[in-house]
Amino acid sequence: MTENERGGPSRRALIGWGGAGLALGAAAAGGGVALSEGSLGLASAAPDHAVAFHGTHQAGIATPVQDRLHFAAFDVKTENRAEFVQLLKDWTAAARLMTAGKPVGEGAYGGLAEAPPDDTGEALGLSPSRLTLTVGFGPSLFERFGLADRRPAALADLPKFPGDNLDAARTGGDLCVQACADDPQVAVHAIRNLARVGFGKVAVRWSQLGFGKTSSTTPDAQTPRNLMGFKDGTRNIAGTETARLDQHVWVSASDGDAKSAWMTGGSYLVARRIRMNIETWDRTSLQEQEDVFGRDKGEGAPAGKAKEHDAPFLKAMKPDAHVRLAHPDSNDGITILRRGYSFTDGTDGLGRLDAGLFFLAYQRDVREGFIPLQRRLAAHDALNEYIQHVGSAVFAVPPGVRDSHDWWGRALFSKEA
Amino acid sequence: MTENERGGPSRRALIGWGGAGLALGAAAAGGGVALSEGSLGLASAAPDHAVAFHGTHQAGIATPVQDRLHFAAFDVKTENRAEFVQLLKDWTAAARLMTAGKPVGEGAYGGLAEAPPDDTGEALGLSPSRLTLTVGFGPSLFERFGLADRRPAALADLPKFPGDNLDAARTGGDLCVQACADDPQVAVHAIRNLARVGFGKVAVRWSQLGFGKTSSTTPDAQTPRNLMGFKDGTRNIAGTETARLDQHVWVSASDGDAKSAWMTGGSYLVARRIRMNIETWDRTSLQEQEDVFGRDKGEGAPAGKAKEHDAPFLKAMKPDAHVRLAHPDSNDGITILRRGYSFTDGTDGLGRLDAGLFFLAYQRDVREGFIPLQRRLAAHDALNEYIQHVGSAVFAVPPGVRDSHDWWGRALFSKEA
Repeated sequence: MTENERGGPSRRALIGWGGAGLALGAAAAGGGVALSEGSLGLASAAPDHAVAFHGTHQAGIATPVQDRLHFAAFDVKTENRAEFVQLLKDWTAAARLMTAGKPVGEGAYGGLAEAPPDDTGEALGLSPSRLTLTVGFGPSLFERFGLADRRPAALADLPKFPGDNLDAARTGGDLCVQACADDPQVAVHAIRNLARVGFGKVAVRWSQLGFGKTSSTTPDAQTPRNLMGFKDGTRNIAGTETARLDQHVWVSASDGDAKSAWMTGGSYLVARRIRMNIETWDRTSLQEQEDVFGRDKGEGAPAGKAKEHDAPFLKAMKPDAHVRLAHPDSNDGITILRRGYSFTDGTDGLGRLDAGLFFLAYQRDVREGFIPLQRRLAAHDALNEYIQHVGSAVFAVPPGVRDSHDWWGRALFSKEA
Repeated sequence: MTENERGGPSRRALIGWGGAGLALGAAAAGGGVALSEGSLGLASAAPDHAVAFHGTHQAGIATPVQDRLHFAAFDVKTENRAEFVQLLKDWTAAARLMTAGKPVGEGAYGGLAEAPPDDTGEALGLSPSRLTLTVGFGPSLFERFGLADRRPAALADLPKFPGDNLDAARTGGDLCVQACADDPQVAVHAIRNLARVGFGKVAVRWSQLGFGKTSSTTPDAQTPRNLMGFKDGTRNIAGTETARLDQHVWVSASDGDAKSAWMTGGSYLVARRIRMNIETWDRTSLQEQEDVFGRDKGEGAPAGKAKEHDAPFLKAMKPDAHVRLAHPDSNDGITILRRGYSFTDGTDGLGRLDAGLFFLAYQRDVREGFIPLQRRLAAHDALNEYIQHVGSAVFAVPPGVRDSHDWWGRALFSKEA
């Protein structure tokens, strides 16, 4: 089986763009083309280092979770529908290139020394790093461009939950882009270049760097630990569990009505910035910590069980234990796909780490996913003593870009309903 | 050659601590011990995944640059010298364990369910990831504990440079810890656990996450790109260049006088948070960008040369080009060891990325290193149009911890001068 058959970029392809991209700069400097070891080495040629951009669903949802995240919410600045549609097409073209490990534009630097480079350059020589770019549309987007009658009912506004302490500067957004990659420089580069391509039409409202994944969509993998030191969400939907994905994540043609038909194959994303009271947690006894989660800390096993993936016996846990309250058996089967990341954004003004979980969850209908689940958790979860939700957003994540002629949001903006 | 002979942790050692660390939790959960693939796999057993903690110099300076950074500056809260000395001993013990990939304390969770765990747990199962922890003492520390007559003259206060726009909340500090690791979760875990060990005696003043290295101390490696897309600092001191390290980085017994003799084998660290005006830079032509640096963007070669490591011909560059002004030939041979990281801390209130370079530089004497260099750059560098220094600190980095009886700062706090 060759590399191409397995879906990864061939070495020839990598050399091709690398050489083309560098040619102008090298010519200006008197010749000489060199690529970093990374772009030619075994690692970047491995099939899992480029994730296919085209597909029925957007990549970055069922895709095996990458190590790092850069997430950005954007506000729309243009009032011109055609201009916004062109932006979506331009973003799609840029994303198609970047997820393949290529720079934005024709060459790395756009061809003219007198012009700004097409690509900002800091990812040049790095591997694709399994970059995925996933776009979503927030409720406020549907107040623009004559889209009011296209807003799906499943894209429900989130209510104010008990304990919410939301910062407006970290909440909402007309659009979002989730960039996930194993190399953070690749994820940051992607968001920055999309922001640059969108200059004047959109502006970053807020953004979040996630340094460590807290969930896995890979079957049988151990769940990474969150900043409380626990494995949480161990029963996550694996990217290979087609039936569970169809049941809980992907919007079906039979969902909703004509105005939301454009969402078929898409999903709904809830993003919550959950600050952890790290210093308080760290002074809490092991017994209390394990009671709060309903798991043991070392192995991650449900209370009374031996292994992480053992089926939990919920009655062995305290009534307010996080696992017990969040489990589908306690929630009429509610299941969401979690894809959250740990964050650390320096310190607050009081010498405490501004750290926690940037929670990302995909579901087929927000009204049947996050909202009822969080109502229950916000009211009862023992964990609430140690966390606070400080940012929030919800997005309709359209279906995948099918081929090289398709673009993000085409079905939403097409004339036929 | 076995793994142990090459300085890395043996698999047996890893199983040993992992097993011990997990035993309590597993016992509480009804038995069953499992380690993640990471802690037993080839990667974590590779010799370069644990960096020796003991040595003449602290690790994290000449050590090959790791991928990620978490840096914290602390303020001292105790007025009791003995209590502070005990903290330094406790920190040393914790650092000795964590850099070996082990949790803080006797077991992972301290042995008692009724007590807070000795270790916060989120790095459990991860490899040592080449973690280094490097401690420094700020000028303000010497105003405490009767240390006034021990402050080295080489630990000079930085003057206000033209263009400085320093945020007091990101400036100064009595102490610092630089945590570098290939896995950011390991670096964040280390800082957090040192902060926890220091609770009541010290408090985090500010901290900075660095997601991507911008420099290399590995000979012949390509220099990573900064967020301007350029390779900068390509002539950095390699960790193997003993003569250059002795000349420019390590404090010698002949430096200074009796009051600074405790610094022999140490170094001085300047930290600067340099915000980049990313959006302005991205709209600048390639020609202007290359003129500003005095390099081509693709290969990183000095102006008029073909390869990154070719000796620069400074007169081929514009008089205000960054490389020309920063080069030792323009500065009476001033050479510093750079170890900076790119950062992205969300957005400012104006929709612009709060991103740039967290500059870290080690030198033998701040008065002969960063100060004269930055005076020149701040006055003339073409790059100043696109950057702003917004945070600043300087620290005396004491010599290494020599053995299992030694501790950070012992020479400073010992009775004999």
